[in-house]
Amino acid sequence: MAALAPSVTVAVVGAGAMGQGIAQVAAQAGHPVLLTDSRPGAAQAAVESIAKALTALVEKGKRTAAERDATVARLRAVDGLSDLAPAGLVVEAIVEDLDVKRRLFAELEDIVGADAILATNTSSLSVTAIGAGVRRPERLAGLHFFNPAPLMALVEIVSGLATDAAVLDTLFDTAKAWGKSPVHCRSTPGFIVNRVARPFYAEGLRLVQEQAADPATIDAVAREAGGFRMGPFELMDLIGHDVNFAVTRSVHAAYFGDPRFQPSLIQQELVEAGRLGRKTGRGFYDHSPGAAKPVPRNAEPAAKPDRVLVQGDLGSAAALVGLLREAGIAIEETAGPGLLVADGVTLALTDGRTATARAAEDGIAPLVLFDLALDYAKATRVALAPADGTPSEAVAVATGLFQALDKAVSVIDDAPGLVVMRTVAMLASEAADATMQGVASAVDIDIAMTKGVNYPLGPLAWADRIGLPHVLAVLDALARTYGEDRYRASALLRRRISASHIPSP
Amino acid sequence: MAALAPSVTVAVVGAGAMGQGIAQVAAQAGHPVLLTDSRPGAAQAAVESIAKALTALVEKGKRTAAERDATVARLRAVDGLSDLAPAGLVVEAIVEDLDVKRRLFAELEDIVGADAILATNTSSLSVTAIGAGVRRPERLAGLHFFNPAPLMALVEIVSGLATDAAVLDTLFDTAKAWGKSPVHCRSTPGFIVNRVARPFYAEGLRLVQEQAADPATIDAVAREAGGFRMGPFELMDLIGHDVNFAVTRSVHAAYFGDPRFQPSLIQQELVEAGRLGRKTGRGFYDHSPGAAKPVPRNAEPAAKPDRVLVQGDLGSAAALVGLLREAGIAIEETAGPGLLVADGVTLALTDGRTATARAAEDGIAPLVLFDLALDYAKATRVALAPADGTPSEAVAVATGLFQALDKAVSVIDDAPGLVVMRTVAMLASEAADATMQGVASAVDIDIAMTKGVNYPLGPLAWADRIGLPHVLAVLDALARTYGEDRYRASALLRRRISASHIPSP
Amino acid sequence: MAALAPSVTVAVVGAGAMGQGIAQVAAQAGHPVLLTDSRPGAAQAAVESIAKALTALVEKGKRTAAERDATVARLRAVDGLSDLAPAGLVVEAIVEDLDVKRRLFAELEDIVGADAILATNTSSLSVTAIGAGVRRPERLAGLHFFNPAPLMALVEIVSGLATDAAVLDTLFDTAKAWGKSPVHCRSTPGFIVNRVARPFYAEGLRLVQEQAADPATIDAVAREAGGFRMGPFELMDLIGHDVNFAVTRSVHAAYFGDPRFQPSLIQQELVEAGRLGRKTGRGFYDHSPGAAKPVPRNAEPAAKPDRVLVQGDLGSAAALVGLLREAGIAIEETAGPGLLVADGVTLALTDGRTATARAAEDGIAPLVLFDLALDYAKATRVALAPADGTPSEAVAVATGLFQALDKAVSVIDDAPGLVVMRTVAMLASEAADATMQGVASAVDIDIAMTKGVNYPLGPLAWADRIGLPHVLAVLDALARTYGEDRYRASALLRRRISASHIPSP
Repeated sequence: MAALAPSVTVAVVGAGAMGQGIAQVAAQAGHPVLLTDSRPGAAQAAVESIAKALTALVEKGKRTAAERDATVARLRAVDGLSDLAPAGLVVEAIVEDLDVKRRLFAELEDIVGADAILATNTSSLSVTAIGAGVRRPERLAGLHFFNPAPLMALVEIVSGLATDAAVLDTLFDTAKAWGKSPVHCRSTPGFIVNRVARPFYAEGLRLVQEQAADPATIDAVAREAGGFRMGPFELMDLIGHDVNFAVTRSVHAAYFGDPRFQPSLIQQELVEAGRLGRKTGRGFYDHSPGAAKPVPRNAEPAAKPDRVLVQGDLGSAAALVGLLREAGIAIEETAGPGLLVADGVTLALTDGRTATARAAEDGIAPLVLFDLALDYAKATRVALAPADGTPSEAVAVATGLFQALDKAVSVIDDAPGLVVMRTVAMLASEAADATMQGVASAVDIDIAMTKGVNYPLGPLAWADRIGLPHVLAVLDALARTYGEDRYRASALLRRRISASHIPSP
Repeated sequence: MAALAPSVTVAVVGAGAMGQGIAQVAAQAGHPVLLTDSRPGAAQAAVESIAKALTALVEKGKRTAAERDATVARLRAVDGLSDLAPAGLVVEAIVEDLDVKRRLFAELEDIVGADAILATNTSSLSVTAIGAGVRRPERLAGLHFFNPAPLMALVEIVSGLATDAAVLDTLFDTAKAWGKSPVHCRSTPGFIVNRVARPFYAEGLRLVQEQAADPATIDAVAREAGGFRMGPFELMDLIGHDVNFAVTRSVHAAYFGDPRFQPSLIQQELVEAGRLGRKTGRGFYDHSPGAAKPVPRNAEPAAKPDRVLVQGDLGSAAALVGLLREAGIAIEETAGPGLLVADGVTLALTDGRTATARAAEDGIAPLVLFDLALDYAKATRVALAPADGTPSEAVAVATGLFQALDKAVSVIDDAPGLVVMRTVAMLASEAADATMQGVASAVDIDIAMTKGVNYPLGPLAWADRIGLPHVLAVLDALARTYGEDRYRASALLRRRISASHIPSP
Repeated sequence: MAALAPSVTVAVVGAGAMGQGIAQVAAQAGHPVLLTDSRPGAAQAAVESIAKALTALVEKGKRTAAERDATVARLRAVDGLSDLAPAGLVVEAIVEDLDVKRRLFAELEDIVGADAILATNTSSLSVTAIGAGVRRPERLAGLHFFNPAPLMALVEIVSGLATDAAVLDTLFDTAKAWGKSPVHCRSTPGFIVNRVARPFYAEGLRLVQEQAADPATIDAVAREAGGFRMGPFELMDLIGHDVNFAVTRSVHAAYFGDPRFQPSLIQQELVEAGRLGRKTGRGFYDHSPGAAKPVPRNAEPAAKPDRVLVQGDLGSAAALVGLLREAGIAIEETAGPGLLVADGVTLALTDGRTATARAAEDGIAPLVLFDLALDYAKATRVALAPADGTPSEAVAVATGLFQALDKAVSVIDDAPGLVVMRTVAMLASEAADATMQGVASAVDIDIAMTKGVNYPLGPLAWADRIGLPHVLAVLDALARTYGEDRYRASALLRRRISASHIPSP
C-alpha cells in the first residue's frame, strides 16, 4: 500500500488551530487542500493565517517565497461539505462531540467518492463509536495530530473496530510522506500519548500532595536530571489545568475508575481557584509580567569528599564511578550490593523504597538516596533524599559528592522512588500494559512519547536501559509503601523478567 | 407455611416476554391467572401467544390437548388493575423503572386483599426500594424468574429489608409447587446470578484484551473442557452486548466501583460499534446467514509419548494418570510436587502463575501448563500454555500427550490461570463473598448458578472438588501477577482453609 | 495577629440551626451581631429562639438574666445584605450550593469594608471554589462550626488556596476568644472531621455486612470497651442515614472513588427503605415510643479461672495482668509472645488476623482473641472472637476470665481485628494520611476528633498508646485478609516505624 499521491485532494473540516495546521501540512506536502468550517469566514481566515505563518518562515529564511506561494495556492476555503466531493481524504477536526462528528461523517459519506478515506482528528472520542455512524466504517480511521500540527512530528493512526487494514496502511504511509512520524494504535481511551503520559503529571502531583517537594524543585529535577524538556508543573501550566484535568478525568472514567489514572486534588484545586496556568496568568507559578522565576531547592555548597568507596555494581548509575574519578576523587572498589560510601555516609540509587525504610531494612546509617538521571554525565542536577534522622553533616557529604560532579543538588523529603525514577517506572509500566493489551507496539509507543510529548527517551527503551528488574523493584516498592493498585507493575514487565530467569533445559 | 393453593388467583402485570412466561407457569400449575398490561390488547395477545406455544407442545407430544385447553382456560386478560382485586398473589413484570414500579404497587395495595402477596420480577432494582413505596412492605418480595420462564427452573426469592419471612416461605413453596427450583436471597445488587456470573464474562474478556486467546478458542475451551453449555463470547452474543454491558455497568456502579465488577473496554467497543450480537447479525462472531463458524485454535497432530513420569499427586487432575494408562502410555510414578514429565518436558496443572513465572521460580524447563477440565475423562479439549521460550518440540510433546487422550488441544498465550481454572476460581470467590455477606446460602448459590445459567457445577461445589487451597493459590497468584484488588480472594475462602489447619488441642 | 475585638460587628447570613448557633456564640462573646436570612421573618425568629434558649439556661442557673439580656441586646435581625456594611466579619451559613454561595459573597464584597473577613460555614464545598467567586479571595476562609454550635467546641478554620495567612490567624484567635477549640486545615474534601471519621461508621457497617455481629453488640462494644460516647449505629441513627450516607458518597466521589471511602450497601438499604433513623422512628433500631431497647450479645456467666499464665508482654493490654491479680486470680509469668493461657485456652489481643488464621499460622488451639479496650480497668465490656472450631468450653474459659474482671462479654464471629482495634487502626491510618498530605497537623487532627465528634482520644494519640507497630500489624493483617486497597496502611505510619528501626551510625 502506498501513500496517497500528492495529486489526491485532501479536505479538512474545521478551521480551528488543529484543522488549520493539518491543512498546512497537507498543502506543504503537495496536495490540493479544501478547507471548510461551519463558522462563515473561518476557513478563509485560516488560509490567510497559514499564508502569514509561511511568510514569517520566508522572512526567517526557512522557506523560499516560491514554496510559500505554491503551498498557499493549493489551499482553498470552500463554503460547505458539498464542495468536498473531489476529496480522496477528508480529515475532520471539529468540536469533540460524538453526535456532531457522527452527523458530519454520515453527511460526508454521501458526498465523497467510494474510495475516499474518512479520518477524524479526535483526541478523546472512540473512533469505533464515530465509525458506527456511517454505512462503511471500514474506511474511517483516526488521524490524530498533535498541536501545533506543522511542528509536532507525531501522528497517531487510530484503528476503529471495523477499520480496514489497507486504510490504516494508506494513512500511515501518507503521514510518513508528509514528513511525520506516524504510529499505529487501536482506538482505546487516550490512544497512546494521552494514556501513557498520565503518570508524568500524576507522580509530580502526588509528590506535591505528600509535601515531598515543591513544583519548582520537581520541575528542575525533571529537566536537569531527567532530561525532560519541561517539568510536569510548567508543562501543565502551559497546557492549562482545565484541559489537563479534563483529560485526566476523562481517561479515569474511560478506564472505569482505574486508580492508575486517579485525578489529583492538587490540580482540581487550581481549576477551582481559576488558576488555569499561563492563560490566566497564574497556575502553579505566577506568570504575571515581572513575576519572579520559580526557584528550586538548591543545597548549600558542601565539601568535596577525598575518597569514595564503591561497593559493587551501581547498575544504571555506574557512570558515576568514572565521573567521580574525573573529578579527582580517589575511588576504592569492593564487592557489594551497589552502594557508594563517602566519609562514612552511604549513598544509593533509589530502588523504590524510602531511604528510611531501606536504612531500617538493610541496617545502613546514615543513608542518603539519589535519584535517577537520564545521563549522569550530562545531568546538571540530582535529587537526594536522606533517611529520617540523618544528621545534616551526612547530607552535606552526599551533597558535596554530587556538587563535585558539577551538579546542583535538591534535597527533598524522603519520597519513595524520588522523582525521575518513580516517574519513569510508572511511565514504563503503563506503556507495557498498553503493549500487552495490543494498543500499540512497544516501538510505536516509544516513538509516540518522544515525538508527541518530547520525552528524551521512550519509556520502554528507558526501562530497558535502567534494567527491567530494577524498574520492577521500584514499582513493587511503591506498591508496598502505598498499598495501592495504582502502583501495580504491569504483568508484562513481570513476565519479561521471569522469562530471563528460566533455566536452560 | 405452605404453597398457595392452586385455587388462589395469580395476577401478572406486564405482558412482555417475562410476564407472559410467568402467567403460563402459574396457569400450568392450576391457578386462575389474570394478565394485564398498560398497552391495549397486549394482555390478550399474550394469552393467545401462550395458547399457540402450548399447541406447539401438543403437536410435539409433550402436552395433551386437554392439558393445553385447561391451562388456557385459566388465563384471562383483563383491562386494568382494578380487575386484579381477587388476586392472592400479584407478580409485577413491567419496565425496570423504580418510580413506575412504586406507583404500580401503591395502586395495587389498595385494590388487592389484605392477605395478597405483592411480588416484583425486577432483575436490577432494589426490592427494598420498591417496597418502600407501599404502606405494608412486609408483604412485598422479589420473585425473579429467568428467561424463558416456562423453561428455566431458577426462581430467586428476594427479600427486601422489610419483607416478612412468612411471605418469603410462601413464595418459595409456591415456586416449588410450580415445578421450579427456588432459592432465597437478600436484595443486593445483581441478586445471586447477575452478581456471581460476572467473572464468567469478565475473565474471558480480560483474556481477549490481553491477547491471550481469541473468543472462539476461549469458547471452545469453556465448553469442551469446562463443561459449560456455552462459552462466554457466544453467550454474550446471544444475550446481546448492550444488555450484558448494561448489567455489568449497573453492578459495577451498585458496588460503588468495586474493581471485581469492572466492565471491559472490549465489550464496550462492540456496543459502540453497534455489534450487539445475534440480534444485529454481528458481535464477537459473524451471525449473518452463511457466515463461517468460528474456529478455535487447534494444535497440529503430534506424536503420542511412550511413557510419562508422574511426580506426586496431580490433585484435581489426578484422573489423567488412569487415562494415560488406558491410552497405552507407560506410567512411572515417583514422589514429587504433582507434575507430569514426558520426553523431558514437564507438564503441570495451572496453579495461577504464568508458565513463565513458574518455570523461573521453580527452576523447571521446558514447562507447559494445562488448564482445568470439569472432568478429564469426558473433556474433548484442553488448553495449554507454554512458558516463554519453550521450544516448539516441547509444546508438541505436551500436545501429543493430550491428543493421545482424544482431546483437541488449544495452545494459548501464557495467561495466568489459563481459562477454565481462572474462571472457576473467580466464580467461587465471588460466590464465597456473597455467602459471607449473607446474600444467600452456599447451597442456594450453587443451585442458582446451575439452574439459572446452566453451569455444569455450582461454583462452590466446584471449588471444593478442586480443593480450596488450590483455588486460593490460583487467586493469590492472579493477585500477585496483576496487583489488582479485582483478583483478591474472598476472606471466607482464606478462613475455611485456615480452619482446616488449626492443630487439635 | 489578635482576635477580632468584641466591638467588631459580626454578620451571620442564614438563620437556620447553624446560623442561629453561630450568631449566639458571637453575641455571647460580646460582638454586635447582625443576622439576616432570605426567608422573610426567619432572622427575627432566630433571634427570638436564641433569647428563649438563653432564658432556659437562666432558669437552669447556667446564666444570669443580665447576661442573657446583654447577649440578646447585641443581636439584631436585619432585612438584607446591604445592612451588613458595618460587619468586620461575615459568616455565611446558607444552603450548600456552590453557585448560590458564590453569588452571595460576590454581592457581599461590594457591601462590606475592605478589611472585613468573609467566612463560610460550608461543610462539604471547596473553600477554594467558593473563594474563586470574589475579587479578593485572600480574605475568604472556612469557619466550620459543628452542630449545635453553642455546645460543640470544635471550629475548623479552613484555608482556601488563596486565603491569606493573617486572615486564618485572626479567625483562629477569634474562635479561641469565643471559647472554642479551633484547628487549622486546608480545604480538602471532608476537611478533618468528615474525612477522618469515615472509618468509624464504615468498619461498623462492614462488620454487620459480613455478619460478624449485630448493630447493638457493636454499639455496646464501641461504648463500653472503646469509650466512645455513642456506637456507630446509634450515632448514624441520630445523624440520619440520608445525611450520613450523602456525606459518605460525597467524600467517596471527591476522593475519586478511593475504596477507603466506599459507601455501604447496608446503609444504602436503610435509605432505600426510608428508615432514616430517629427522625423517621426507625433506622438500625426501632425508635418508636415504647420500643424495646436494643440488647447486645451477652455471654452467659462462666466460671472464673483459678490461675492464668501470662506469656510475655501483653503490649497495650498489659494492664490486664494487674486486674487479674486484683480479681484474685493466680498469675504465673513466663517469657513468650504476649499471650494469656487459662485452663489450656490461649487468649490474645487481636493483631488484625482472624483467630482462625492466627490459630493455624501460629499453631495454637484453642485460641480466643479479645478486642482492644480504651482502658481495660474502666471498660465494662469486651468482645471475644474464638477461632473456628473452638469448643464452647474453651470460649467459656475466656468468657469467665473477663467476667471475673467485671466485664460483660460479647462473643462475636471471627472478624479480623475485632471491633475497637479495627476501628481505631483505620481512624489512625486516615489521620496519618491527612497529616502526610498537609491537611492539618497531627495535634489539630486529634483535637478535631475529640472536640468535633467526642472521641475519647485522638486517633493519632490512641495509635501511639497502642504502639505504631501493633497498629500497622493490624492494618497489614486486614489488608492481607481482604486484599483490598481500602485497608492499606498510611505510608506515614510505615515510615515512622521504619525511622525507629534505623541503627545508630
